[in-house]
Amino acid sequence: MALKQGWIFLFMSTAMPNPKNLSSWLELSRLQAGISKTTLSSLFSQDSKRFQDFSMECGSLFVDYSKNFIDRPIMDQLLKLAKEQSLDQAIKKISNGSPINESIPAVPYTSMRDPALPPIILEGKDIAASIRNNKFHMARICDEVRSWKWRGFSDRPITDVVTLGVGGAANGTEAVTRALKAFQTSSMNFHFIANADSESLRQLLSRLQPDSTLFIISSKSFRTQETLQNANLAKQWIESTTQAQEAKKLHFLAITAQKEAAIEFGIHEDNILPVWDWLPGRYSLWSAAGLPVALAIGMERFEQLLAGAHKMDDHFTTQPLQNNLPVILGLLSIWYINFWKATHHAVLPYTEALELLPGFVQHCLMEANGKSVDTNGNTVNYNTAPVIWGTAGTSSQHTYFQLLHQGTHTIPADFIIAISQPVSGNNRSSFIQLLAQTEALMKGDKEGNILDHEAPSHEQILPGNKPSTTILLKELSPFALGQLLALYEHIALVQSVIWNLNPFSHWGTELTKRYSSSFAYTNANELTKQAHDPSTLGLLKQYKTWKHPIDHSTDATLKQEVEENSYPFF
Amino acid sequence: MALKQGWIFLFMSTAMPNPKNLSSWLELSRLQAGISKTTLSSLFSQDSKRFQDFSMECGSLFVDYSKNFIDRPIMDQLLKLAKEQSLDQAIKKISNGSPINESIPAVPYTSMRDPALPPIILEGKDIAASIRNNKFHMARICDEVRSWKWRGFSDRPITDVVTLGVGGAANGTEAVTRALKAFQTSSMNFHFIANADSESLRQLLSRLQPDSTLFIISSKSFRTQETLQNANLAKQWIESTTQAQEAKKLHFLAITAQKEAAIEFGIHEDNILPVWDWLPGRYSLWSAAGLPVALAIGMERFEQLLAGAHKMDDHFTTQPLQNNLPVILGLLSIWYINFWKATHHAVLPYTEALELLPGFVQHCLMEANGKSVDTNGNTVNYNTAPVIWGTAGTSSQHTYFQLLHQGTHTIPADFIIAISQPVSGNNRSSFIQLLAQTEALMKGDKEGNILDHEAPSHEQILPGNKPSTTILLKELSPFALGQLLALYEHIALVQSVIWNLNPFSHWGTELTKRYSSSFAYTNANELTKQAHDPSTLGLLKQYKTWKHPIDHSTDATLKQEVEENSYPFF
Repeated sequence: MALKQGWIFLFMSTAMPNPKNLSSWLELSRLQAGISKTTLSSLFSQDSKRFQDFSMECGSLFVDYSKNFIDRPIMDQLLKLAKEQSLDQAIKKISNGSPINESIPAVPYTSMRDPALPPIILEGKDIAASIRNNKFHMARICDEVRSWKWRGFSDRPITDVVTLGVGGAANGTEAVTRALKAFQTSSMNFHFIANADSESLRQLLSRLQPDSTLFIISSKSFRTQETLQNANLAKQWIESTTQAQEAKKLHFLAITAQKEAAIEFGIHEDNILPVWDWLPGRYSLWSAAGLPVALAIGMERFEQLLAGAHKMDDHFTTQPLQNNLPVILGLLSIWYINFWKATHHAVLPYTEALELLPGFVQHCLMEANGKSVDTNGNTVNYNTAPVIWGTAGTSSQHTYFQLLHQGTHTIPADFIIAISQPVSGNNRSSFIQLLAQTEALMKGDKEGNILDHEAPSHEQILPGNKPSTTILLKELSPFALGQLLALYEHIALVQSVIWNLNPFSHWGTELTKRYSSSFAYTNANELTKQAHDPSTLGLLKQYKTWKHPIDHSTDATLKQEVEENSYPFF
Repeated sequence: MALKQGWIFLFMSTAMPNPKNLSSWLELSRLQAGISKTTLSSLFSQDSKRFQDFSMECGSLFVDYSKNFIDRPIMDQLLKLAKEQSLDQAIKKISNGSPINESIPAVPYTSMRDPALPPIILEGKDIAASIRNNKFHMARICDEVRSWKWRGFSDRPITDVVTLGVGGAANGTEAVTRALKAFQTSSMNFHFIANADSESLRQLLSRLQPDSTLFIISSKSFRTQETLQNANLAKQWIESTTQAQEAKKLHFLAITAQKEAAIEFGIHEDNILPVWDWLPGRYSLWSAAGLPVALAIGMERFEQLLAGAHKMDDHFTTQPLQNNLPVILGLLSIWYINFWKATHHAVLPYTEALELLPGFVQHCLMEANGKSVDTNGNTVNYNTAPVIWGTAGTSSQHTYFQLLHQGTHTIPADFIIAISQPVSGNNRSSFIQLLAQTEALMKGDKEGNILDHEAPSHEQILPGNKPSTTILLKELSPFALGQLLALYEHIALVQSVIWNLNPFSHWGTELTKRYSSSFAYTNANELTKQAHDPSTLGLLKQYKTWKHPIDHSTDATLKQEVEENSYPFF
């Protein structure tokens, strides 16, 4: 017995199995062949308890996944797959700060929203203390800025908070600030600038006053090209209006893991909040990078957001797999991707305040699992993360829903809506639209010709049988939103365990950064030596022709440009 | 000879062939098997003229499609497929206002931007006259509003233009207004409200003044539920501040094909501009629905937008297939979808002002060809429109690009950037990012381990060999933008001809509208009789539980709600 356990442990710690070699995988393929011959409607008529069995309330969320191509034997087999991949153990490890296996580092992302927060030692340091200290620091800054104690260089209170950050450093934070706009209890305006194309920042600054603007520079490495370009522009803008030495202290905050670099940029030590090297950027929202949210809605409500996420963490780490919402939805996505050959997953918020949610989910799932090498170093022989896409309903119904109804691809879709929201709108009407839509997708219209008797009926035939999952939020609140976001984070983890991927690296993103700096700081001759391909060189030439309509035929011209420009070749 | 031509005509007019039965289709499958064994980089080393052969300048656009899995024999075979599907004839018919075949109505969308505009008779009416008159009408309104001759009920000039419209009625217009913001020569602010969830409109109105706000109600049917709900809210808002009889004339314009309905709503006849029944909503931008653009940038520049589109129309309708940009890009999409099993197409603008372009292209291509029934009434046995998705670079590089580099799906991508733009930004830096990105996608990093020597090298291996197309705009201008938008419209037509679909219907969208109204105006008892599925009824119940936390167990409660609410069941 002891020997057997030892063997299991050895197996776990050296190589996770390829899921395709598991018995459950084969069985799921067989089950898919069966259920694909039936219809969603007939699944309902075969089982009167289907809705009860395949829906779940959890805190402020209610999830109905009964309009999917599943039945009890399929769910059982998916759960078997999860067990065969030791999902339950992986979940436990995540929550107590252990590595999932030798190839995947410990990333205890749930600790950031754990109110109990026991000590967690990572590389010899207690990260719990740092998480706790950070919240005190955030609370202090929130209090000062929101109470007008913090003032700009001419003694005016802050009217505008401009966050400069790209990717994980800011997009989750922007999505939440947008979603909770109705909860804003500050008269400040919140702006987010991500792109290197500084048109947005320039247009924004033309409308703001330097002495009442607070910049938050959010960059873990404090090297992110886009963010630093914009930060330098902001610094120039402040410096051009005042020579007061303390101005930078009053107008710049940094959120970074590279304190020294931020100090060198000119940011006061007291104004630097930490993010941590152990934390992949897409989880930053829950750290100091969430500061804009806290400034907008107050620290107490930011804590409610964390509490909502913790509610979902608690559910995820304590519930058995078969009652575990992120597990069920994660397995459902595996089901569609690997057995129905879906390469898509649509995220369709019908509460307009959630319009940036698809971007959050896109980042969460596509970065974690948009991979083709497993933790053993083998190229996978099965599909991994689908493309996540979607925009706010109901306007999407008038554009691309045509394809959802009548197109040729399998597209599982999450329909999401808050039952109540602080600013009372037509959300009853949005709810009707959502309900009608998911029913129409399932039932279709096999007769055709009911819509317009004069038009050809065959064009009007809608096959139906399109799956969907509906997620209701009891209300649009920080708590419910926290739950929803954590749900998708856990789904990413579930998928990665089944697919045997490390969800916490993102070398595809890293390559990008490396590549572009090799372009930027190379002069013309070296660029030619680097042997760029003819397409890249041809595009460069076209750029030069259109940008500077002069003669580029001589080296002298090139040389002159090299001298004139910081980006030599351009 | 005459007989043979007659036979061809008969063939054309009765049934288009299934493209899968054509000889070119079989040959393309064979060619795909061959080229899929090679790499994009090796295609460049095999052919020194590849970039020249597979790139094209057209007006203010330069398109490089050389980083795709094509070679000369493949392009020839794709062009053969186009000829076998009579694409050249279809293009001619579109431009002169004839139906493509018996099953597809005449939709001469190019006529709206044709400066010559010869008479075009559709159903006995000359639509050219109507197009011309509409432009005069638009010009007059533009002139009055922009010159402050048009004033609100308290004699203040208009400061804010709020467009109420959803789908085709507004999203193209919004995308263009956003893209050309730097060209705005009016101090007015432009707002777009699409969704039934009126949170946005309510928040907006709280910041505006009734006496300086102009509403444009854009709805072809003047029945669109979302738009009319918002229009009613706007009307109440105006009526609550003034009893002046002429107020509605000063604050409401309508763009509709249903003049009577607009008059009944209270809009003055002089303020009603036409859209036409023959025109699918997604082309509305070029009609009176483009009015917000014209109000923002002036009618002259709106005409430049039309001129850019006309430039592309002219190219499309006169150039031979092999030199025809929309034909080439359309065939390229067919190549990926039908022979590489791609179900995606990413649209990635690196000029931030073009951030709403993916939504325009999404609507354009997914509504036109997100279909599974061909013009003969047969269910297609090949894939049709892919999902179009994407967001503005460079921020996307920090989120989902991981999947583009290392994921398991084939995702052709269009990278789009303007070389110059009116508000000078870091677009040189954005261009470098774009260039680095397309090269990195192609070349990958097969060694791994170059990025971080301490991390496992296998995770860092990026396979490369990911295709992309780069579209350069000489500058961000109305003309170049017009060209770009028309390019995608023509691509939709090219695809539809190859796939033998009617691109101008969208019954999937229609079904949605029909379904939701059956929900909205039905009382509880009837709803039960309609036999909604248990999932739909269960969600309704959950809605009621969370919305009104009272006892719903008796009919009396339901009845009370029926009496109290306009949507009886809620």
